[in-house]
Amino acid sequence: MKTKSNALREIIGNARPLPEASRARAAYQGIKGANSHEAAGRLFPESLLVPYKTFEDVFKAVERGECDYGVLPVENSTAGSVSAVYDLILRYRFYIVGALDMKIDYCLAGLRQSELGDIEKVISHPQALSQCEGYTTKNGYETLSCSNTAVAALETAREKRLNLAAICSRRAAEEYGLKALDYHLQDNPYNTTRFIVISRTLYISDGANKVSLCFSLPHVTGALFHMLGRFDALGLNLTKIESRPVSGKDFEYLFYLDFSGSVGSEGVTELICRLSDEMPEFSFLGNYTEREE
Amino acid sequence: MKTKSNALREIIGNARPLPEASRARAAYQGIKGANSHEAAGRLFPESLLVPYKTFEDVFKAVERGECDYGVLPVENSTAGSVSAVYDLILRYRFYIVGALDMKIDYCLAGLRQSELGDIEKVISHPQALSQCEGYTTKNGYETLSCSNTAVAALETAREKRLNLAAICSRRAAEEYGLKALDYHLQDNPYNTTRFIVISRTLYISDGANKVSLCFSLPHVTGALFHMLGRFDALGLNLTKIESRPVSGKDFEYLFYLDFSGSVGSEGVTELICRLSDEMPEFSFLGNYTEREE
Repeated sequence: MKTKSNALREIIGNARPLPEASRARAAYQGIKGANSHEAAGRLFPESLLVPYKTFEDVFKAVERGECDYGVLPVENSTAGSVSAVYDLILRYRFYIVGALDMKIDYCLAGLRQSELGDIEKVISHPQALSQCEGYTTKNGYETLSCSNTAVAALETAREKRLNLAAICSRRAAEEYGLKALDYHLQDNPYNTTRFIVISRTLYISDGANKVSLCFSLPHVTGALFHMLGRFDALGLNLTKIESRPVSGKDFEYLFYLDFSGSVGSEGVTELICRLSDEMPEFSFLGNYTEREE
Repeated sequence: MKTKSNALREIIGNARPLPEASRARAAYQGIKGANSHEAAGRLFPESLLVPYKTFEDVFKAVERGECDYGVLPVENSTAGSVSAVYDLILRYRFYIVGALDMKIDYCLAGLRQSELGDIEKVISHPQALSQCEGYTTKNGYETLSCSNTAVAALETAREKRLNLAAICSRRAAEEYGLKALDYHLQDNPYNTTRFIVISRTLYISDGANKVSLCFSLPHVTGALFHMLGRFDALGLNLTKIESRPVSGKDFEYLFYLDFSGSVGSEGVTELICRLSDEMPEFSFLGNYTEREE
């Protein structure tokens, strides 16, 4: 009687492909013009996009059925940490049904009446300011911080000062009626953030090429090494691994692991099901397609 | 001629213990009362603590010799991402010479004239608001976001509204003359953030028990597995592993890895030196003591 793996095999076997998204509603955290809003627009171009205040509000909206999907940043983001989002996925027992690696490109956005030479102060999220530090230093700008790059655009529009500009996306500049005075401000031209799509229902589309898992391991020599040997034996490529200590439990670690593969391969499903039986804490988070833009 | 490993062996062999910190100057990012300020105070109780605007400003201050050490959050922080700090460590060729796992405890801080029943709005960093969402929802508070928990305290002090409170540390409340109206607001009682101490000079003290490495691996099946086998063979316990894609290079990943151990053990130094010869990109980041408070 291997109930865990039988249940998981059934869940995977019953997963339908992701439906056409035309009438879907997608939740995101932040305000219009935020990077999450832009990512949601690219992932769900024909859908109603609904803003929420916090990450957890996005989960609540999906749980209540107000929205079908939630779009959340999980890497290299100005909005929060990866582990906060993964914690919520586990708590709400949601699945990952899509992902997007989106290039983040910052412009300098001022009032329509401003010229580049007028600007003396720039406002943005501290991490965005940090990513554009070479640019702001070179120009001798004074920097002010606020909670979000889109909020920076909104503040700039409200303040109506000719010498103030926001560091934000072009979409945020347009959204708040600002003029882009300069482009591509970030020091690192390969500035991408990873967004995932969460859902109450597990959808697995044909061509899904990435699997996400979460599991805990005791802090014993080699536990992770032996775990990875199981993937190596099947020739599976890991594309992400991240550990963090389990709250309140010494010597126990939680791992987030992504690999290239599909549950359409019997070997992959077999491995996942076996691990779910063997390990005290193990979650299959989804099998989806990762896009890059 | 194995020049890389010889150079590294010499650097490690010449490392002195961390000096007494009494006259040291320590840089941190943010304003007084920020979590980084509190961590810097615990790590350097007798030192001058100097605030800087951005993570990179902290590195610049240490590079110019304005400060001897920098204190920066690297995990579960409201201030920014781990990878931003690690990128800077590699770029500036600094070392990690200490670490602190600090419990983050939030209070509700209002004006001295306010009572708990007066509060209708709370202000804080979005991630702090998220961590206290159970509390704010239960009390029906309207939430406002700002760039930092200490900034929230400062704003609350400046706004002088009886119905506004900040979610911040007790230290921030004290710093800005606010009264703590309620305590331990966070949903997760084990809310800790990891801070590291960076330095231009490699110091290794007796009793240093943690080693940090950074290296890149090609995206080939099993590359990480075989790498971890080298640690497993020596019985070394990994305490952290994190991967991320290398900017602009497909199929190449950067790994941050911590393990319990000391370069006082010849096996550990031998392994580190061999890896530095074998791998195209490999950095020994330090061997230090991690404290918990």
